[in-house]
Amino acid sequence: MTSNASINQRLTDMGLVLPTPPEPVACYVPAVISAGHIHVSGQIPLKDGQLMATGPVPTKVTIEQAQAAARQCAINAIAVLAGCVDGDLDRIQQIVRLGVFVQCEAGFADQPIVANGASELIGDLFGASGRHARAAVGVNALPLNATVEVELMARFA
Amino acid sequence: MTSNASINQRLTDMGLVLPTPPEPVACYVPAVISAGHIHVSGQIPLKDGQLMATGPVPTKVTIEQAQAAARQCAINAIAVLAGCVDGDLDRIQQIVRLGVFVQCEAGFADQPIVANGASELIGDLFGASGRHARAAVGVNALPLNATVEVELMARFA
Amino acid sequence: MTSNASINQRLTDMGLVLPTPPEPVACYVPAVISAGHIHVSGQIPLKDGQLMATGPVPTKVTIEQAQAAARQCAINAIAVLAGCVDGDLDRIQQIVRLGVFVQCEAGFADQPIVANGASELIGDLFGASGRHARAAVGVNALPLNATVEVELMARFA
Repeated sequence: MTSNASINQRLTDMGLVLPTPPEPVACYVPAVISAGHIHVSGQIPLKDGQLMATGPVPTKVTIEQAQAAARQCAINAIAVLAGCVDGDLDRIQQIVRLGVFVQCEAGFADQPIVANGASELIGDLFGASGRHARAAVGVNALPLNATVEVELMARFA
Repeated sequence: MTSNASINQRLTDMGLVLPTPPEPVACYVPAVISAGHIHVSGQIPLKDGQLMATGPVPTKVTIEQAQAAARQCAINAIAVLAGCVDGDLDRIQQIVRLGVFVQCEAGFADQPIVANGASELIGDLFGASGRHARAAVGVNALPLNATVEVELMARFA
Repeated sequence: MTSNASINQRLTDMGLVLPTPPEPVACYVPAVISAGHIHVSGQIPLKDGQLMATGPVPTKVTIEQAQAAARQCAINAIAVLAGCVDGDLDRIQQIVRLGVFVQCEAGFADQPIVANGASELIGDLFGASGRHARAAVGVNALPLNATVEVELMARFA
């Protein structure tokens, strides 16, 4: 048993149920595997078919709501990862990089706090294997008016 | 003949003529090869030396015009790829990831439709090898006031 | 001695003193190593604990100031790289990709000029090994209200 050999159990312990990963839409797909890495497309905070948060922080969405949305983006990204490794998340060796885009008003400065919603979920779930590089930025608009979008790269075996 | 062995022919069939890839500008270059992957710098919708679309969607540029601009960004990125494989696009094994930035008004929600202009061109040209991961986001400004910027990563042999 | 075998000396010749790389903050870390590449998290223009530039270009920050800020982001990223190779920057084989985010007013078009502050520093320091792919975009907001954020990927031995 490696130090990483209990991710699926931890998922259960954390009460997380992964959604069915989205279907490929035409030529653009939820994830591509290349050279031992999984590149997950930008995920928005869909939960049970609904966006958890739309519009900019902090005028339409609070920082706390945006954090929860970032966490949901991460859950959706992990569901895509799971689909790439036959559901066995112990095969994920390292979460390498997160790109976090936060829809916000001009001059909003707390993208890192919002992005922590995604980063902490990943840290809690994957432990040392979940320690990732990150670029978090603000933007004025996102697909379907989502408040947060998260893309992810991971190495797997 | 592999399933991927006709990209240059398909290019011709689709009536696409690749532009000359841009010259390196100082220390920043159109593409870098590392570990079997080509990383293409962000491409803007230059065609015959002119930007096809400038300013934000949807106030200054329609979604359809922005789609065409995204398609042109993809053509320019493919021209850079071609330059990295001695013009033989059959050596491209997989388009791995697209980053698509759409200059738009705050709250604009149709970045995926705009980005499909790039994704569909790549799918039409490369087939299964063209199925890519993607992050599409909105931004308030882009280089030279371009409406779209597309960066790309691909694996090659 | 390889053509790359004097980066630390060049650092001295250029009068550059690398800062101590930032400490890991929880589950998100300054850099992750995967498959021979170092992925450096987004760096902001911190110098001696202070941001060199905050707010958007060109209304609150001039292009020249933003360039200097981009240069500082690159210095901070190089400090993180140095920490990953025991201080021996000669082990950096290639700076592969820079992602440059410039906080700016809508329609600002000179992100490439701002980003050159980072690219030229890297070119001056690493020579041919510093020739990188780049995506430079504008955004309406960045962490801590920083004017520029730079993320970086490099291959090392």
